[in-house]
Formats: sequence, C-alpha cells, structure tokens
Amino acid sequence: MNLFAPSDRAAALLARLAAFVDERVLPAEAQYHAHVAQAGQRWTIPPVMERLKREAREAGLWNLFLPHAELGAGLSNLDYAPLAEATGRSLIAPEVFNCNAPDTGNMEVLLHYGSDEHKARWLAPLLDGRIRSAFAMTEPDVASSDATNIATRIVRDNGDYVVTGRKWWTTGATDPRCAVFIVMGVTNPDAEPHRRHGMILVPRDTPGVEIVRPLPVFGYDDAPHGHAEVRFDGVRVPAANLILGEGRGFEIAQGRLGPGRIHHCMRLIGLAQRALEAMVARAQSRVAFGKPLAAQGTVQQAIAQSRCDIEQARLLTLAAADALDRHGNKAAKDAIGMIKIVAPRMACEVIDRAIQVHGGAGLSDDFFLAHAYAGARALRLADGPDEVHMAALAKSMLRGAHA
Amino acid sequence: MNLFAPSDRAAALLARLAAFVDERVLPAEAQYHAHVAQAGQRWTIPPVMERLKREAREAGLWNLFLPHAELGAGLSNLDYAPLAEATGRSLIAPEVFNCNAPDTGNMEVLLHYGSDEHKARWLAPLLDGRIRSAFAMTEPDVASSDATNIATRIVRDNGDYVVTGRKWWTTGATDPRCAVFIVMGVTNPDAEPHRRHGMILVPRDTPGVEIVRPLPVFGYDDAPHGHAEVRFDGVRVPAANLILGEGRGFEIAQGRLGPGRIHHCMRLIGLAQRALEAMVARAQSRVAFGKPLAAQGTVQQAIAQSRCDIEQARLLTLAAADALDRHGNKAAKDAIGMIKIVAPRMACEVIDRAIQVHGGAGLSDDFFLAHAYAGARALRLADGPDEVHMAALAKSMLRGAHA
Amino acid sequence: MNLFAPSDRAAALLARLAAFVDERVLPAEAQYHAHVAQAGQRWTIPPVMERLKREAREAGLWNLFLPHAELGAGLSNLDYAPLAEATGRSLIAPEVFNCNAPDTGNMEVLLHYGSDEHKARWLAPLLDGRIRSAFAMTEPDVASSDATNIATRIVRDNGDYVVTGRKWWTTGATDPRCAVFIVMGVTNPDAEPHRRHGMILVPRDTPGVEIVRPLPVFGYDDAPHGHAEVRFDGVRVPAANLILGEGRGFEIAQGRLGPGRIHHCMRLIGLAQRALEAMVARAQSRVAFGKPLAAQGTVQQAIAQSRCDIEQARLLTLAAADALDRHGNKAAKDAIGMIKIVAPRMACEVIDRAIQVHGGAGLSDDFFLAHAYAGARALRLADGPDEVHMAALAKSMLRGAHA
Amino acid sequence: MNLFAPSDRAAALLARLAAFVDERVLPAEAQYHAHVAQAGQRWTIPPVMERLKREAREAGLWNLFLPHAELGAGLSNLDYAPLAEATGRSLIAPEVFNCNAPDTGNMEVLLHYGSDEHKARWLAPLLDGRIRSAFAMTEPDVASSDATNIATRIVRDNGDYVVTGRKWWTTGATDPRCAVFIVMGVTNPDAEPHRRHGMILVPRDTPGVEIVRPLPVFGYDDAPHGHAEVRFDGVRVPAANLILGEGRGFEIAQGRLGPGRIHHCMRLIGLAQRALEAMVARAQSRVAFGKPLAAQGTVQQAIAQSRCDIEQARLLTLAAADALDRHGNKAAKDAIGMIKIVAPRMACEVIDRAIQVHGGAGLSDDFFLAHAYAGARALRLADGPDEVHMAALAKSMLRGAHA
Repeated sequence: MNLFAPSDRAAALLARLAAFVDERVLPAEAQYHAHVAQAGQRWTIPPVMERLKREAREAGLWNLFLPHAELGAGLSNLDYAPLAEATGRSLIAPEVFNCNAPDTGNMEVLLHYGSDEHKARWLAPLLDGRIRSAFAMTEPDVASSDATNIATRIVRDNGDYVVTGRKWWTTGATDPRCAVFIVMGVTNPDAEPHRRHGMILVPRDTPGVEIVRPLPVFGYDDAPHGHAEVRFDGVRVPAANLILGEGRGFEIAQGRLGPGRIHHCMRLIGLAQRALEAMVARAQSRVAFGKPLAAQGTVQQAIAQSRCDIEQARLLTLAAADALDRHGNKAAKDAIGMIKIVAPRMACEVIDRAIQVHGGAGLSDDFFLAHAYAGARALRLADGPDEVHMAALAKSMLRGAHA
Repeated sequence: MNLFAPSDRAAALLARLAAFVDERVLPAEAQYHAHVAQAGQRWTIPPVMERLKREAREAGLWNLFLPHAELGAGLSNLDYAPLAEATGRSLIAPEVFNCNAPDTGNMEVLLHYGSDEHKARWLAPLLDGRIRSAFAMTEPDVASSDATNIATRIVRDNGDYVVTGRKWWTTGATDPRCAVFIVMGVTNPDAEPHRRHGMILVPRDTPGVEIVRPLPVFGYDDAPHGHAEVRFDGVRVPAANLILGEGRGFEIAQGRLGPGRIHHCMRLIGLAQRALEAMVARAQSRVAFGKPLAAQGTVQQAIAQSRCDIEQARLLTLAAADALDRHGNKAAKDAIGMIKIVAPRMACEVIDRAIQVHGGAGLSDDFFLAHAYAGARALRLADGPDEVHMAALAKSMLRGAHA
Repeated sequence: MNLFAPSDRAAALLARLAAFVDERVLPAEAQYHAHVAQAGQRWTIPPVMERLKREAREAGLWNLFLPHAELGAGLSNLDYAPLAEATGRSLIAPEVFNCNAPDTGNMEVLLHYGSDEHKARWLAPLLDGRIRSAFAMTEPDVASSDATNIATRIVRDNGDYVVTGRKWWTTGATDPRCAVFIVMGVTNPDAEPHRRHGMILVPRDTPGVEIVRPLPVFGYDDAPHGHAEVRFDGVRVPAANLILGEGRGFEIAQGRLGPGRIHHCMRLIGLAQRALEAMVARAQSRVAFGKPLAAQGTVQQAIAQSRCDIEQARLLTLAAADALDRHGNKAAKDAIGMIKIVAPRMACEVIDRAIQVHGGAGLSDDFFLAHAYAGARALRLADGPDEVHMAALAKSMLRGAHA
Repeated sequence: MNLFAPSDRAAALLARLAAFVDERVLPAEAQYHAHVAQAGQRWTIPPVMERLKREAREAGLWNLFLPHAELGAGLSNLDYAPLAEATGRSLIAPEVFNCNAPDTGNMEVLLHYGSDEHKARWLAPLLDGRIRSAFAMTEPDVASSDATNIATRIVRDNGDYVVTGRKWWTTGATDPRCAVFIVMGVTNPDAEPHRRHGMILVPRDTPGVEIVRPLPVFGYDDAPHGHAEVRFDGVRVPAANLILGEGRGFEIAQGRLGPGRIHHCMRLIGLAQRALEAMVARAQSRVAFGKPLAAQGTVQQAIAQSRCDIEQARLLTLAAADALDRHGNKAAKDAIGMIKIVAPRMACEVIDRAIQVHGGAGLSDDFFLAHAYAGARALRLADGPDEVHMAALAKSMLRGAHA
C-alpha cells in the first residue's frame, strides 16, 4: 500500500538496501553470533561486521539516516523511514550501514549542536564508522520515566567540568570501539526543571570513567555492543566539551528525539514484518494433526491480525515522519508520541504470535524471534515507558489542540 | 494536525461539509429522534430530514460519494474518504447528503451494471433523493458468513422471474420512501457456487413482497429507516429486471463491495472520532474525588489509546482507498479486507471507552454513544463477520502474494 | 462437573430452582416480552409474572436470598450464590422468586436497619411480593463514581424531613407496583464526607415525587420495571421515615453492598453461562463453508476461553461469598471488590463472543443475547465503575494488608 | 480467601515451607546464580543448593509432592497445591524440597508404573535427591503439539531395545547429577496412533546418548539444570527398561500429566504472586513526577488487575486439584485443561506488568522478573501450546458433557 509513497530516489535506494540485507546481512547473522559466543571473544567485534560495513559503504549504502546533503544521504524522514524498516529486519543490520542507535542520534547532536572542534574530533570518525559512541542518560537510582530526575552532576571547575554520577542502560558503552560518551547531567541545580541539565562530551578513556557491568535484557547482553552500567567518578573534561551551553540539555534532547523515535519505530516495524514472514513460512511447513498449521483458524487469525497491526503502525510512522518533515519537531510531537506508544507494543505482540506458531523453537536461538522480542520489549521502556507517552499525548489533546 | 492531506478540491469540500454537519446536522439530531419517538410517527420521515437534504443539495453537498463526474462529484475514493468520515459523525448525516447505505451501493450497481431502463427508472430518482432502496442479501435460515449459502430462488417463468425466499437485515426496507429492492438469489442452482446467484430489481409494491417485521440491534430499530425481515412469496417481476444476467450476482457484489466497505469504515472512523471528542469533553467537565476525570491516569490512557487507534484505522482506510483508486478492486482486496477487520472493532472499543467515561449517561440516549455502539457492533457482522475476513486475508497471504 | 460443591440443602434447592427456571421461566420469556410490546401495556405487569411468582412461592422457592431463618431461607451467602446464578440465566427470573434487585437490597436494609414500623409497613409486603421498591442514589448532575458527591438534600423541618433533589437510574421506580423509595441524600452538610448523608423512606405517592422519564440502556428500557429519572421537589415525609439516623447513609450502604454485589455477580455468571450454552448450541447447528461452525478453530477458542473465564469468575464469587460469611463485610471488602471488577466485564466478553457466533441474529431480540449484553454492560458502571473499584482494591493492597 | 481451605496438616506445612522459602531460599538466589556465572562453573551444582536440600530434608520439607503416605507426604493434590505455590516463588526453590520438574513426574511414573527393579534402581535415589532425571519427549523435527508425531524409534532386538532419535527441550539432561532419561518413542509403528508409543528408561551414560547442546529460553539457559537437545544414536538398553509395556506410552503420559500440570500451574501462581508483591513494593518506593508510582491510576490498575487474575487462576487450579482428588484424571480432564490454558498466560501478563512498573531494571537480572517471564512464557508451549488445550476443551464441551 502506497499512501506515503517514497520518492523515486528513496525507492531505488530501498531496492538496493533490501537486497543487501537479504543477501548479505541475514546470512551473516549466524557467523556474527558464533563469533561472540566463542570463549574470550564476547566483547570483541566480529570481523564479518567490519567486512559488511566496507561493502555497504562501497555500495553507497552509508549514513542514509542523515538528512544533511553532503555528510549524509540528504533524505527526508519520510524517505528514510522505509530504509530504516529494511535495516530493522536484522538486529545487526543497522550498524552495517552506519545507521545504528545511539550513534545516529549522537551524530545528529554533533552536527546540529556541536562546535567545529566537536565535529572534527568526533563527528568525522563517527561518520566514517571508525569509532562508536554512547549516550548516557538513564540512571539506576531515579525513575527515568521522569527525565528531570536525572541527578548526575556536571560541575564547573575553572577551565573544566567535573562529571560525577552513575548511569545505566548506556547502550554501546561496552563496544571496544566506543570512544566517546554524551553524558546528561545537572549543570544548573537551581534553574527550573527543564533548564537544569546540560550535555557534555566525555572521552571514554578519561580517568574516572568506569564500565561497571553489562546489563542483560531477558538474558541477552547484546555483546559486543551491549548496555552498560557506567560510573563517572569525578571525571574531568575541558569546559569546551559542554555542548551548546549550561542548562540546554533538554533542548538538545528534544532535537534528538523526533528522528530517533521514527528510526526506532521503523526498525521495529521491519522486525515485526520479518516475524510475520517467519510465521507464515512456519505455518506452511509445519504439520500437526494431519495438516499444516496454516490450515488452523487460530493460526490464520494470528497471521491476519499481525498483518493489520503492522500495516497500521507502518502508516502511522510514515505519517509521523511526514509530519516531522513538513511541520517540524514541535508540531509533530503528538504524532511521534503515538508511534512510540504503538510500535513497540505492536512488535511485541506480533513477535509473540510468531513464537507461539514456532513452538519451543521460537523461544530458542535457532530463530531470531526470542532475541527480537527482548529488543522490542525493551523499547516499551527505553526513552520513556508507554504510560508516560500516553499521559503526554492525552494532556496535549486535553489542552484542546488535537482532540 | 491532519496526518494526511487530501487534494485541494477535497479539502475545500471537506471544510464546507464538516461545517454543515456540525452546524446543521448535529443540532437537528434531537428533533429527528423526537419525531420518531412520537406515537404513530415511528415509521414516518421527520420533516427536518427533507429540509436538511434540500439545504445540502443547494450547498452542492450532494452525491459526493459517486466517482462519476457528471452524476456525482467525480471524486476518487481517496478524496471522498474524509468526506465520508465527516458524515459518519452523525447516524443521520449520511442521508442528508444522499450518501447513505445501502442507497450508495445500489446507485453504484445501477450505474455500473444497470440497463438504460434501470437507470431511468431507479437511478435517476435515487440520485435525486426522491426514493430510497434496499439491498436484500442476508437470510435468516443460513449462515450468511458464507454467501454461497444464499437460498432465495429466482426462477425464470416465460418473460418473468419469480422470486421466492426469506431475507433479513434488509436495511431501509421499512423506510416509507423505499421503492425498490435489489435481491440476491439463486438463478443457476447447478452452476459452481460463485456463478449460481443473480441480482434482480424488485419494486417494493410488487405483490408477494411482505415486510415481516423490523429487527432491532441492541434494542435500536433505527426507525424510520430500519432493518427488516422480508418475505418474497412468489414475487413476479419482468425478466428485464435481472441485472447483468443470470449467475452474475457475485460479480456485481464484488464491484459493489470495495467502495462500500471504504465508506462504511470511514463513517465508523468519524463516529469513533466524535466519541473521542465527547470523551475528552466529558473528562474535562466532570469532577470526581475532587478533580476532573481528565486528571485520572486511566482516563488519560483511554483518551490516548483511542487517538492512536483512530489515527491508525484512518490511515489504513485511506491507504485502502488509494489502493482501490490506483490498482482496482482485485489488487486492493487485501487492503479492503484489513479495514473491514480493523475499523468496526476499533470503533466499538473507542465508543465503549467513551461510554465508560460518561458513566450511566453514556448508556442512555442522552448521548449518541450507546446507539453508535450498536451501529458499530453490527458492522462486525454485517457484510461478513471479522473471522471470515481474517481467514480470507490470511489465505491470500499464505498463497504467497503479500506476506 | 461442578468445580464447587454446595451444601446438601443448597444442592437440593438448586436442583429444584434450576428445573423451575428451565421448565417454567425460560419458556415464559417470549410471553412476558410480548405483553410489554403491546400498545398501551408497556408499563403494566405481564400476568405471566404474577402466575410464576405464585407457583414459585408454592414450590418453596421464595425469598431464598434472605439469610434470616424465618423470614427467608436462612442460607449463607455461599449457599445462596449458586441459586442466584440459576436465577441469573433469565432477566425475568429473579423476580419470579422474589429475589430481584433492588428489592432484595432494600429488604435487607429494612431488616437490619429499619424500625419495627418500617418493617411492618414495608418489609412485610415486600417479602410477600405484593409491592415493589426502588433505591434512589445516583444523580445526573454529579459523578456518581464518587458517592460523596450526592447532593440531594434531606432537611429536617419540625416533625418532617423535606427531600429535594434529582435522581436517575432509579431501578424499579417505573414499576406500577412500586410503593416506596429509599432515598440517599445529605442530612449533615457540614460533617465529614462519609457522615454527611442519610437514607430515608419516601412513599411513591408522596406529593412532589415525579417520575420524569424512563432511561434506556442500549435501547432497552426494561419495561415495566425500568430505570427512571425521578425528581423530588420538596417532598415531605415524617421524620420517623429516616433510617437509623442522620449521617448514617454510608453505614447503611456498606451493609447493603456486600450481599448485593455477590447477588449481582452470580446472576451475571448465570447469564454468561447461558450465553456459553447458546454459543455451543449455535456452533453445533449452524453450517458455513461446508461444516458446522463448531469445527472452526476460532469458534472453539471462543468456547474454551469463555468456559475458562466463567469458571474463574464463578469461583472468585463463591470465594467472596465464603469470605463474607466467615469474616464479615469489612474483611471481605477486597474479595467483593474483585468480583465487582471481574464479573461484569467477563459477562460482557462472553456474551459478545456468543453474539459473534450467532451472527446478525445475536444482535436482534430473537435471542436473549443483545439484551443480556446491555444488562451486563450497565453493571460495569452501576454501583461504581470498574476504575473506582480497581483503585480501591489497589489502595487497600498498597496499605499493606493483602499484597 | 479460603474457598478450598487446606487441611490443618497442610496449613501447618505451608507455614513452615513458606517461611523456609522466604528466609532461606530467596536470600540464596544471588549466591546460586553467582556460582553458575563463574567461568568454568556453568554446568556444576552450586554448593548452596545441596546445603539447602539437606536443611529442607531435616526440616521435614521433602518429597511433599508425593501422595504416597510412606515415600512422600501423603498429601492430596488439593493439600499439596498451596505448597507448590510457595515453592514456585523462586525458580530454584522446588529443587530444594525435591519437588522440581521433571523429577516429580518421573518419580510418579516410576512409583505407579515402574517394576520393582525400576523402583530400586531409580526411584530410591531420586526420592533421596542423590540423582536427577530427565524426560525426553519433544522432538525438533515434528510439531510436538501433536504428540502422536513423535518419531524416535524404540526397536526390540533380542533381549534389548535400541533407541534412535533426536529429542530437545529435555529439561534436566544437562544437570551433572542427571542419571537416567525416560524416553518416549515408537514401539508399535503399525498400531493406532495412541497405542504406538512406549516409554523406556535410558541411563544417561549408555553409549550413543549424546547431549548435543543446551537450549536457551529468551537467552536463559537455566544452567546447571538446563534444557538440552539430545541425540539417541542406536542406544541399547535391556528390554526390562521398558515401562509397563509396548504401546503404553500415552497411557503413562496421561497418568503423569494431571498432577504435573497442577504442580506447574501452582508454581506459576507463586511466581506471579511474587511478581505482584514486587510490583507493589516498587510502586511504593519509586518516585516520578513528584509522587510515588503507586499514586498513578495506571499503576493501581496494573496492581488491581493482577490481583484479580492471580486469585482467579489460583482458585481454578485448586478446584482442578480438588476434582483430580475426588474424581480422578479422566473426570478432571477439562478442569486440568483449563488451568493449563489460564495459568501460564496469566503469569506472563502479571510478570510483564511488574516489569513495566520496574522500568529498565525489570528487564535486567537485578530482579527476578525477566527470568521469571521466560519461564512462564515457555509454559505456554511446553506440554502443549495454549491452542491445543483450547481446542481439546472446546471439543470436550461440544461432545455435550460440560457446556
């Protein structure tokens, strides 16, 4: 269905990207996972990843997420969305195209809010795929559903800032190539809540940065990328590392969020779509009680319902991308809130149905489904739980603009 | 903010139509219902309806559903869809604009498949809004989820056909202005199932046509339009009344269904949208435990979830309309199946949440909600129950085309 | 197989009661409804009802709800519960056995809190089934989910009280046999919220009592019993009509609620059980696509899920009855709250599935299902909406007693 | 609530068992998991487990599951059920009391169907907790939802049987103490489907038995107990190892299933209950937007709904246990089918809500929730997927016995 049809250029890119995912990335998943399963290799980069990255770059499938015409592909959010969906089919695909979170969001922050020095030192190698980065926001000691709770301190001390605090779910921090963190913390403790925080660049090798441990999600640690608990113990960086200025953390976060949520949601739609395809294939090939599972009414219902759910979430996400392109972050806020509410839950439900159709195999790692479920389930919490986004959407409507 | 932008012409029509609905139709609902509630007036037409029809026609808001450029508005399905939504806000609005089922579908059948004589005699007055019509398909004695079950007989007898059978849920048959039925029945009992039936025009005043009784839906008889049980007892009509030819009933039904389902679904979306607006208004005005209902998290969740559900169903329906416009009935089959699955259930859920927020009042006729629920619930069965459409969609996917 | 075995005495009563319902009441439903459908008879009592009452009383199936050994059957709540379930199978059955709301609750109020004079004048004829009564609590102008909102005034004036206010959903007020109302209103406007109200007996023929209109539920007015809007316009009654004393309304309401909720829930379970049986019967007899509906996996799922839902709600309600018997109203509060949350929603879901299996017929009055749905849906709001009971249950758990 | 109150003896055991779980087992979970997380120790038994087993045995909390008066505790299923619930609170608790699957089911098989030699060699050390056992039924190559699909061959060869096939989800096979497998396979390929299979005892150290790999569930391998893929490659055992006789596998499976399902479901209820308690505690302690999560209506709803769900599933499971005690396996079939449908899904939903209330922490291993979810989710598939049990229940009802 073509309500939000991509441009010719995006359609052409999509055809090549989708083929690359199907022909090169999906067949490489097993090799990737086998590498990290080897003793002693858990937190090292599988060579297949760097090889795929080179090939993708040579094929011109690189930094497609970036709307900047020279540094990226210059695509609108609406045009990039189906590409993000295609990469979302495999948990390892986004990185192949240098389009993986949190690096994408971090590159956008550096591009839009970074100084020339920030760009030279960090944006360039990130765009090259030579280094990785992390985004340190959530904290273990406070409810992160309310971001104003963030308590890490960023204190000015002469020409430096000193960062002290504890973060977790810092995705990518355990990646051996991770070179820099963007850390959110309190710069102006006495300001009103949304002007209290700043964002600062902390090179990973700065003294006082300690990767405490990787955190699993349903038993998956997502090595070697991972999600880490990180301690910042009096970490001293030059004052110039502060992005945009004191108290401007939420301003930066807002600019980062819109495209980031669209990317996340489109990747989830790709994941759900692959789960649906797996469900269909399993239903056709597996026989019980003398006929294929596909002949059972309940399996047909699982398939049909999943198709309806996916198509609707896809259209809503495309519409949100379109709104963001046409009206900007603020006007698209409700639309983006809606996809954040809808897409992760939809993906969980579709993947869960696919697991049920696969039987025990669906719970194991012989299929991608259990791991995919863990990833989708995490996104009902990451970047704000469903409940917070529903409350925000309702309040926006109650204020009278959109009901 | 509108997630989808209609064409300029449709947008202009929409603005005028929506204003007409809000300013003229909604305020007239009470008067309409009061008329039929008067003793002796149940099956008579409220004068306010004929007045509104005149005004709408004068305002150029007439027959907008018909894609035919001269007889109708010449709008694509995609352009008409938001107009259908606007009329769906009120159960009495579609007729005001001569855009109500089953007359719309019947007019399309006459336009596409009728003879010149059929058009002159029935299409012209229908387009004028001078007469009404009914569509007699469902039968009480067989499971109508499987339309090949239809058992009414249409038997050739010299220059006539003789129609014998029992129908029900014949919407509009009790309307005093109803002048003609399109009746589906068996013309070729020995043909393969989908070539067994024909459709024939039966003037309502033909001897042997008996309106047995009106059927209520959750206690609503929808007078004076109504849904009737009708007996055809050896009803004799000229052979020329058969549309298109013997055995071509399913062919006609297919052509009728695509646009019809889109209209139904868009009207349901309008109804759900109005329920959401009522929910928001009630939540803001009603106080419990010292604060407005709108301050309760569960009410906010009802509002936010309903918004997400409506936006998704709306986009899916627009996408189906677009597919129908660009690719035709057959290629759009899955898309139309999906909206038939999604929209009625969505509307039921949203309206049910609105009832809950309204408390007991929501169940009464002081609000439109209970009646709206009855209408939406009926559409989970009318024109095929959810389960049949889900099975058809799954089978289409399993055949490999769309998974 | 019965998952819970009642006492021998209850089992014996149940066998006789169930047979009476099946053999006498169910076959009389059509006659009952035909009577009220006749012009001019809507608010008159069908003779069949009075005949069935006589037969039930002669059969010793009378006032079974009342735990009082002489005035009632002397059954515990646990023993009465399955009997209430049996009466719940038909919307007209409870009255046949003088076990219908709100008379049951009113009789309990009179028995426990009434003066000797109250008992002589009102309880005796109610136990005899000679008069009916109403309970006037909910008001149109305030959110009744918060009962402290109730605003009707009960003002002392010498030897009288003067009642002024507007009530609605006053079930039974339109019954021609209704002789007395129990009205809740403010007696002590300056007391703390739960000591502000009193309950007073108001004979229906007192000047100033005006039945404004009957209220429909999804189009059903439940004539001749009905749910009325009632105006009390300076209604003057003797001071002795006040039950228990000023400010004791909530105390009385609490004592009334426990058994009343159990009765309501058990009747709903009976209604759901009958819907399930109808679903099974329809699935076996109706053929689509060449086989009975019962062969479809989705229909089997509807049947199996409904059985699971009913059995669980039944056990929970029995457990609540048992808790009430053994520990009293206060200790059983959470248990009773749970059944109020669970049973109406369960009944709605089961009945809705039954409607779906019945197709269009399920929406009409050819089956009891649509009317049953309306009744069950109303009980998600009557006596407090789901949300209020969920909040109360959660708060009770959060106070640490029961988690 | 006490509808199915345990006997005095069971109540006394429950008090002691629950205290043991809370005071000794829960605090030992971290130590247990730390042991297996150490390099090289994954498939070794944490010493804390053997210590707890000794203490439990000394406390008389041993083999409580076994109805046999001398070998076990002589408890009815109804009396054992709350004890099983108490052990279910911790994934490691059941083994502490020698009450863990699959050993419990295997001990019951040996007790009821084993020869004296089987009992002496295998039952005695199992009852002692000296060895562990596995149950090899499910196969990777066929849909195990239809157990007649099982294809492993058990072929007579003189005085031996030769077992050839591939199994998976063989729980406990990777436990270093596992000494014996009960293997289901085809003994009579030409018999009717339910008389085609037998069960045979295969010592784990028999040549040809190969543990291929452990299988994870959502990333959890449940080491050191584990779920293994196992290959039987011409494994030769004495003919006397066949239990009961050729073709009697389903007969044995049926006898094993009733109590086994009740144990599984009660453990799930204990797990869900612990999740609810964790949800309550987290809601009280965590602050967002200036107030504890417990003050949010949506969190209250999660708590209240979970309580309702748990109580209902608990009562249904107790009722099934009671039915099994009073009427035997066959008559209790529907009741046991219902709990298999209800309990795993209920546990998944409750645990998922608890995860949501915990935020990201709930997905990690800092809480027991993610691991618990994996376990509960597996039980929607193990021992037959929901859909198979729903179909069986519906068919049983359609046969007319129970609707």
